[in-house]
Amino acid sequence: MTSIPNRYRRSHELFARAAKVIPCGIYGHTSPVASLPGEFPYYAARAKGSHYWDVDGNEYIDYLCGYGPVVLGHQHPEVEAAAAEQQSRALCVNHPGEVMVELAEHLVSLIDFSAWSVFGKNGSDMTTWAVQVAREHTGRRKILKVTEAYHGMDPWCTPGHAGLVDEDRVHIHEFDWNDLEAFDRLLSEYRNDVAGVILTPFHHPVFKASVMPAPGFWSHVESACRREGIVLILDDIRAGFRLDLRGSHKLFGFEPDLICLCKALANGHPLSAALGRRELRIAASRVFLTGSYWNSPPAMAASLACLKIMQRDKTPETLRERGEALMQGLVEAGKRHGYAMHCSGPAAVPFIIFADDPSMRRRQRFCAEVTRRGAIFHPHHNWFMSSALSPEDIDSTLRMADGALAQMRDEKI
Amino acid sequence: MTSIPNRYRRSHELFARAAKVIPCGIYGHTSPVASLPGEFPYYAARAKGSHYWDVDGNEYIDYLCGYGPVVLGHQHPEVEAAAAEQQSRALCVNHPGEVMVELAEHLVSLIDFSAWSVFGKNGSDMTTWAVQVAREHTGRRKILKVTEAYHGMDPWCTPGHAGLVDEDRVHIHEFDWNDLEAFDRLLSEYRNDVAGVILTPFHHPVFKASVMPAPGFWSHVESACRREGIVLILDDIRAGFRLDLRGSHKLFGFEPDLICLCKALANGHPLSAALGRRELRIAASRVFLTGSYWNSPPAMAASLACLKIMQRDKTPETLRERGEALMQGLVEAGKRHGYAMHCSGPAAVPFIIFADDPSMRRRQRFCAEVTRRGAIFHPHHNWFMSSALSPEDIDSTLRMADGALAQMRDEKI
Repeated sequence: MTSIPNRYRRSHELFARAAKVIPCGIYGHTSPVASLPGEFPYYAARAKGSHYWDVDGNEYIDYLCGYGPVVLGHQHPEVEAAAAEQQSRALCVNHPGEVMVELAEHLVSLIDFSAWSVFGKNGSDMTTWAVQVAREHTGRRKILKVTEAYHGMDPWCTPGHAGLVDEDRVHIHEFDWNDLEAFDRLLSEYRNDVAGVILTPFHHPVFKASVMPAPGFWSHVESACRREGIVLILDDIRAGFRLDLRGSHKLFGFEPDLICLCKALANGHPLSAALGRRELRIAASRVFLTGSYWNSPPAMAASLACLKIMQRDKTPETLRERGEALMQGLVEAGKRHGYAMHCSGPAAVPFIIFADDPSMRRRQRFCAEVTRRGAIFHPHHNWFMSSALSPEDIDSTLRMADGALAQMRDEKI
Repeated sequence: MTSIPNRYRRSHELFARAAKVIPCGIYGHTSPVASLPGEFPYYAARAKGSHYWDVDGNEYIDYLCGYGPVVLGHQHPEVEAAAAEQQSRALCVNHPGEVMVELAEHLVSLIDFSAWSVFGKNGSDMTTWAVQVAREHTGRRKILKVTEAYHGMDPWCTPGHAGLVDEDRVHIHEFDWNDLEAFDRLLSEYRNDVAGVILTPFHHPVFKASVMPAPGFWSHVESACRREGIVLILDDIRAGFRLDLRGSHKLFGFEPDLICLCKALANGHPLSAALGRRELRIAASRVFLTGSYWNSPPAMAASLACLKIMQRDKTPETLRERGEALMQGLVEAGKRHGYAMHCSGPAAVPFIIFADDPSMRRRQRFCAEVTRRGAIFHPHHNWFMSSALSPEDIDSTLRMADGALAQMRDEKI
């Protein structure tokens, strides 16, 4: 391992302090354990456009975007102005603001199968509530999901194993992504008791390559749900708005009954949403939903601005173009240095995989070396493109990747 | 009922639009169904200090404070400056900011039994996680709680009944507040399988009077938990920081193992926290916890500012003084007009009850009439004092209450 003296000195000092007063020092998806301890910064100081700076002053071209929320780049002036204007009037008041109605109207017009919207503060808020709505609507208990699919941190779906009781998942049944035989077996085994199927638009497990839906996957699932009266829940929290502003199902040619959104919804302001079909409105009215800050108008104003900008600027096209340029450039750089690499997942939510790399050592080293050169590449979690990434950012990144691969080749990694 | 033509015209117009695109129009704790439809505003436009304005331009002295979060008054300049400064640098980045460490250190020093802190965005995030930590720490399953106590909206504790399965609550067992015999019976029935007891510092059910702990209640619960190795979780989400900055247990002379905080933590910025004893650190490290916006520094900067201001200004004392002046004045006004009223709950988190009012008709009418005159009093949910409430605000409110009671007497209500 290359010695990097003092590069992350301040990050490590803060982490040592944090370890005394916060379990694990940093918990959750940004934990150093999830990347590679010592090879990545631990604390950030500021962010602007497509770049951010860690607490040691190191600058990075940002391909994680806060793990998804930042879709237009950090500190987008129009989004921040809309949020600040609302914040100066009402942050946390006893009633919702007019903007809640406007945002619901806007989202319902954008997501064409939907008739209504609710809001939360986190992806888990919406997926957990959606499962309850499916159960209320159908009067059934079973929820089908895909093995290793992430739907949040509540007991029914957390990737963790601690603090659970058997009953948390007694009605949660898993099948492998794209395995329609296994899906059909579960449908048959629990016939008339399946309330909902919750799926991401494509499969994006951590540590592994993303997997697109096989031909016929979505049409099979969709028609099975219609036939059996099962609520089809699309968890579009991670990919939503990056692939298609009308919901990622549009890209894959199917229609869910309920969609959960978060991440790119408000360019970093805390907001999530769930939208559903007219037929689910009564069940949605019955399942209790609330939170201390859930009426807060600033994040809703940010979201309305973010959605309108994404529509005006056709942001998913920009993300795909930039993502394709990045991925194509990386694959070519790999070839130049004798590494077979391929992009996994859609270009707007990309991830890079090395062939013949079962231990992930090449991917880990590559991501660490590019990060050290100034563009953050996560070795285990898919990346996120933002529309603030310029062609120059991509070119700079590809030069960094070239340097990283040359060094790896020299070191015979 | 007094006719109030056009007073809430804009609120009702917005609600009519909302009803088309949002289930129930307004859901959760701010639903009109929770107050009295037609008698209260539905949408807010702006807030400043101790006052807020609805979308029809009606002004209110604020005794709900966003249902708790706003403890220093709306738009507190020091809190807003701290949040805005952070927001201009980093809103949603790939790593936490230095402020997360500072805030954890500050909270751990303030809550003296605690050795660590974690953060979320909502009260439910923390109570649900705390239950898992208790189970992980003890290897047991059962959770004891009080009937009608609110701990959030997750399936194990939601006040709703829709979309649940039997297994959601198979290990949740309830006893009535202050009923130590029932508590002991549960302990005995589930001996060696009780992981945790979760309790609010005093009982604050909706629709009903608050109930303080009976003498000996807390010491009995505390010593039983110690004896049996049960994790005592204090849900201080609603009352926290308003009664005692060191945690509400200080007021009642006991010590929990885990405390959940939210509401007054950041003066309206979205943040919650859980703090615990050193012995629970390993379990806390194991139970997965994360969220898309949970590292966001602005709310943490707001919280640090809010906590320091509350310490500097001895905010709980101000809240108690203002609350006592309000409650004493209301009780006296009641006497003048022939109504027996009493304050229920601590003065900083007060609620008013009329004697001989089993249908709540007097309380409902009184709160609606005072609200119409310009000070919002919720008829079914406890109120919240803020330090921005001035003696003049209290005097104005008491004049409104006097007018409301005179009218009620004239109408023989």
